[in-house]
Amino acid sequence: MSIKPEKTKVGFIGLGVMGKSMAGHILKAGYTLHVYTRTKNSSDDLITQGGIWEDSIKELSRQCDVIITMVGFPSDVEEVYLSENGILANAEKGSLIVDMTTSSPDLALKIYEKAKSSGIEALDAPVSGGDIGARNATLTIMVGGDSKSFDRALPLFESMGNNVVLQGGPGAGQHTKMANQMAMAAGLISVCESLSYAKKAGLDPEKVLKSIGTGSAGSWSLNNLGPRIIAGNMDPGFYVKHFIKDMKIAADSSRNLELETPGLDLALSLYKKLAEMGHENKGTQALWKLFE
Amino acid sequence: MSIKPEKTKVGFIGLGVMGKSMAGHILKAGYTLHVYTRTKNSSDDLITQGGIWEDSIKELSRQCDVIITMVGFPSDVEEVYLSENGILANAEKGSLIVDMTTSSPDLALKIYEKAKSSGIEALDAPVSGGDIGARNATLTIMVGGDSKSFDRALPLFESMGNNVVLQGGPGAGQHTKMANQMAMAAGLISVCESLSYAKKAGLDPEKVLKSIGTGSAGSWSLNNLGPRIIAGNMDPGFYVKHFIKDMKIAADSSRNLELETPGLDLALSLYKKLAEMGHENKGTQALWKLFE
Repeated sequence: MSIKPEKTKVGFIGLGVMGKSMAGHILKAGYTLHVYTRTKNSSDDLITQGGIWEDSIKELSRQCDVIITMVGFPSDVEEVYLSENGILANAEKGSLIVDMTTSSPDLALKIYEKAKSSGIEALDAPVSGGDIGARNATLTIMVGGDSKSFDRALPLFESMGNNVVLQGGPGAGQHTKMANQMAMAAGLISVCESLSYAKKAGLDPEKVLKSIGTGSAGSWSLNNLGPRIIAGNMDPGFYVKHFIKDMKIAADSSRNLELETPGLDLALSLYKKLAEMGHENKGTQALWKLFE
Repeated sequence: MSIKPEKTKVGFIGLGVMGKSMAGHILKAGYTLHVYTRTKNSSDDLITQGGIWEDSIKELSRQCDVIITMVGFPSDVEEVYLSENGILANAEKGSLIVDMTTSSPDLALKIYEKAKSSGIEALDAPVSGGDIGARNATLTIMVGGDSKSFDRALPLFESMGNNVVLQGGPGAGQHTKMANQMAMAAGLISVCESLSYAKKAGLDPEKVLKSIGTGSAGSWSLNNLGPRIIAGNMDPGFYVKHFIKDMKIAADSSRNLELETPGLDLALSLYKKLAEMGHENKGTQALWKLFE
């Protein structure tokens, strides 16, 4: 049931930092790639490499066997899929749609149900691994949907990531991504507090990282964002504004599940404060600004 | 200036889970080992292997060139070092004392100053790596004090750990350990919230760990305590009561440094609640009890 690259037209919508790299891997894997994104010149490189530009989501949807989206916010997902000129109203019966945006589990379920009623297969497949993971095709891809659809998309996923897991039915990919963001949220506060403490106590933060980075306090955040914080580098690997979006979805979804999340709530409140200070386009390590 | 094992009498005070393993490595490295601990039968194994029992801290202190302590709380450290029958009143001039307990940076400084006025060298050298690190001699050892004393103790440290760093002057070891505990504190809330979310959302937590353990949400806590939480294993690697002690020291020390620590404060309040529920002798992963 796998897709044969040479026979498959793949549409990719949303060529931001992540999407551009991901679409590039699909092209390199031998698929016919059709692209659409809001800012056309984001597609220049891909078109040079053989990608085909489509003037609208509608045009793209009508022609492709598999349609992948990597857009910004749940509101974008909703518009791209559910509006009159969107994917579901225009995709062919039998096609497969894959939303790789980090978005709401409930919305993923809604899209799945609506797609199913039109004979279209749907997967939610958000990723982690950031810009570097997207570039190196080492993304973690968390998938929700039917296993038949998962098998169909697997070669595409494997061109973009190296840790691809079907987590469950529709929405399970998004739920897993929420669990991912929640596992990180309050930990970022800890990283900032720890490094700020080290500095204020007169220690050398780099030397401190040498002691604390590999043991029980070790984390991806400490070892990857810690050095950026020490170097004063607030460039976005992962945007503050996107992290706030994700935490809001996670908080809403937690409320629906009647789960109290004091750690997530604290992180969300601090990141909102950070955004209000004008740092929403910096990387998540900019939380440091509240502690320096 | 290094210590020659065969010529050096090392005293070890405090043979709990950690101390017993650590003292064992010193014995294996060829040092003459004198031991004292509150519960004498904790020393049985070491004495079988050649360790020499001393009936009091006073007796031990009078005979040893290097005296290492691994006791429980700052109040224990204070008593062991500063009381009339304690180490400083009884150790020989020229001896070296090394407190490996996680304790207050201020107390470390006080002991250092007092030791210095008696011609005794002092280091603070708390560890991380837990029972497993102690057993496998893979501890991280964070050292504060004079570099001359550090060089003198280094062979001993290297018999117990594999990541030994002189972080700065007296107290710097304890400050680094505080930075370590702070880097971990709120992150433990995140781990519990994430796994609780996963369960309540109907996901398989083990499968979720496969997706989220290796990426940007990855941490020692998630990958080591996560599986214990999933298995319902609340056995102590690191005791709740000791973590509370550490976080209290870190919070006090942060106040002294005029650092706000909302993440640490939240973690401390949740762990206090957990202790009030009767879980103070469980492992830190028992925080899960508040989220399950």
